[in-house]
Amino acid sequence: MTKKISGGVLSPVVTPFDAELRPDRTRWLAHCRWLLSQDCGLAIFGTNSEANSLSLAERRDLLETAAQELDPGRLMPGTGACALPDAVELTRAAVDSGCAGVLMLPPFYYKGVPDDGLFAFYSEIIQRIGDERLRIYLYHIPPVSQVPISLDLIERLLAEYPGTIAGVKDSSGDWANTAAMIERFDDFDVFAGSEEFLLPTLRAGGAGCISATANINPAAIHDVFVNWEAPDADARQEAITAFRRGIAKFPMIPALKAVIGLRTDDPDWGRVRPPLMRLDEAALTALAQVIDQADFQMPGRREAA
Amino acid sequence: MTKKISGGVLSPVVTPFDAELRPDRTRWLAHCRWLLSQDCGLAIFGTNSEANSLSLAERRDLLETAAQELDPGRLMPGTGACALPDAVELTRAAVDSGCAGVLMLPPFYYKGVPDDGLFAFYSEIIQRIGDERLRIYLYHIPPVSQVPISLDLIERLLAEYPGTIAGVKDSSGDWANTAAMIERFDDFDVFAGSEEFLLPTLRAGGAGCISATANINPAAIHDVFVNWEAPDADARQEAITAFRRGIAKFPMIPALKAVIGLRTDDPDWGRVRPPLMRLDEAALTALAQVIDQADFQMPGRREAA
Repeated sequence: MTKKISGGVLSPVVTPFDAELRPDRTRWLAHCRWLLSQDCGLAIFGTNSEANSLSLAERRDLLETAAQELDPGRLMPGTGACALPDAVELTRAAVDSGCAGVLMLPPFYYKGVPDDGLFAFYSEIIQRIGDERLRIYLYHIPPVSQVPISLDLIERLLAEYPGTIAGVKDSSGDWANTAAMIERFDDFDVFAGSEEFLLPTLRAGGAGCISATANINPAAIHDVFVNWEAPDADARQEAITAFRRGIAKFPMIPALKAVIGLRTDDPDWGRVRPPLMRLDEAALTALAQVIDQADFQMPGRREAA
Repeated sequence: MTKKISGGVLSPVVTPFDAELRPDRTRWLAHCRWLLSQDCGLAIFGTNSEANSLSLAERRDLLETAAQELDPGRLMPGTGACALPDAVELTRAAVDSGCAGVLMLPPFYYKGVPDDGLFAFYSEIIQRIGDERLRIYLYHIPPVSQVPISLDLIERLLAEYPGTIAGVKDSSGDWANTAAMIERFDDFDVFAGSEEFLLPTLRAGGAGCISATANINPAAIHDVFVNWEAPDADARQEAITAFRRGIAKFPMIPALKAVIGLRTDDPDWGRVRPPLMRLDEAALTALAQVIDQADFQMPGRREAA
């Protein structure tokens, strides 16, 4: 990987689908480019990317496309998987493509697994990749994965693989946990999983945030990142928090895609893969009202073109 | 698929690994053959098979091996997946191989998804396969998948796809739910997810059981299936329940593999993929005592050869 992610704002890039529910490279690249133009890094293959709804071949194809068309130093693909060979294959492809790092879910099918087993999973991947360019950001998202990454596990991984274990995305929603991660570990970049915690994260010494709503509100979030020491930082934080809470009244992934569809006059952007469902007409109307009342920079046809 | 599974006892076949943690076809086929010799059907790629720890390519390879070497009419592979294309590909391979049916997990990454989304997932698979030989057994295992299959969802799927939706495996551990599934639906085979519920399931009109411990105690479980109306059926049930509870004191998958290793003098059978962990020496010793005290037919070198 070319360089370590140096903190900032990243978006788990939503994945558009064509009429046959295949990933739509053209719409996807346009959205990626718009995000980059807003100083937003690309955490492709995140939870909000429906990454686990994509086959390994589909993820490999999109990764190859991104690495060819975009700056790989701005890419942090999600490469965790339930199956060790899948995680190894996608991680190796990311390293070989020069990605800045990878965001790695734990294997998430079995619940209540011991930390020893999770340590073995990450160890096996690191040893099989065997490449000092590898930078792993652990992905702690217990509300979805139901498999937490404990502080003790992080400590053990950092002791065994310093330099390779580069940081964490904390999507627990539990600020005390985020604060503990920042406090306890050195040379370890802690990203909040929501911009709601961006300012507290930066003030505590964290690295930034990787957040769903950065798909549609990246500029304002980046402003908080840049101006976190400014006198009006709290007011800026309040504004992005209020925006996020407006969106979070809807199912997040369908809502993000619907907003992009609304602002690019391209309602087909709203397609999702099952088990997710598109917003229905009533929800779309309500969402449009939320968006109309918000003051934010949106992906438009001009920017995305 | 050649024929509908007609009820009985099936085992989610545990998957042995070689020293590089690759699926070991030779050990696997030997275990499959021994299970068949004990009148036990082969629910390959179940939870206890570490199926979600295998890549799609590994599952396809094992399926092809099984279909060539064994009677496909005794195979019920697990083909559910988080990603629609994976579920479609493996299900199509199962249908084309003549498997008796498929056991299908819901997509299990996202939690709290609407029944509409799960209906859409199964619908999309059925329509893409487009083959009247397809027989789907729904896999309800909320303690692990965390994505339940509701009675209302089953009703809707049965109404839309009669003949294709063939049954369910209920691994909820909630007898009231199993009883409701049997009571509410016609032409729908309900398999208990544990032999602990085998006799109640059969008495209520269910089809049988698909159970982890059938990997190591298939004959006694099959005896209950065959003799469920016999005067001593309750005593037989008590014996298999007691055996299961002895094994369930240990982590189930490592314990099953360890037992096979003990009885075939092949300790390497005990290998698991992370995030699971092999039993340690203390657990192995305790497990060996449980097994020595039990009266049951085990996979031995002679039977498996």
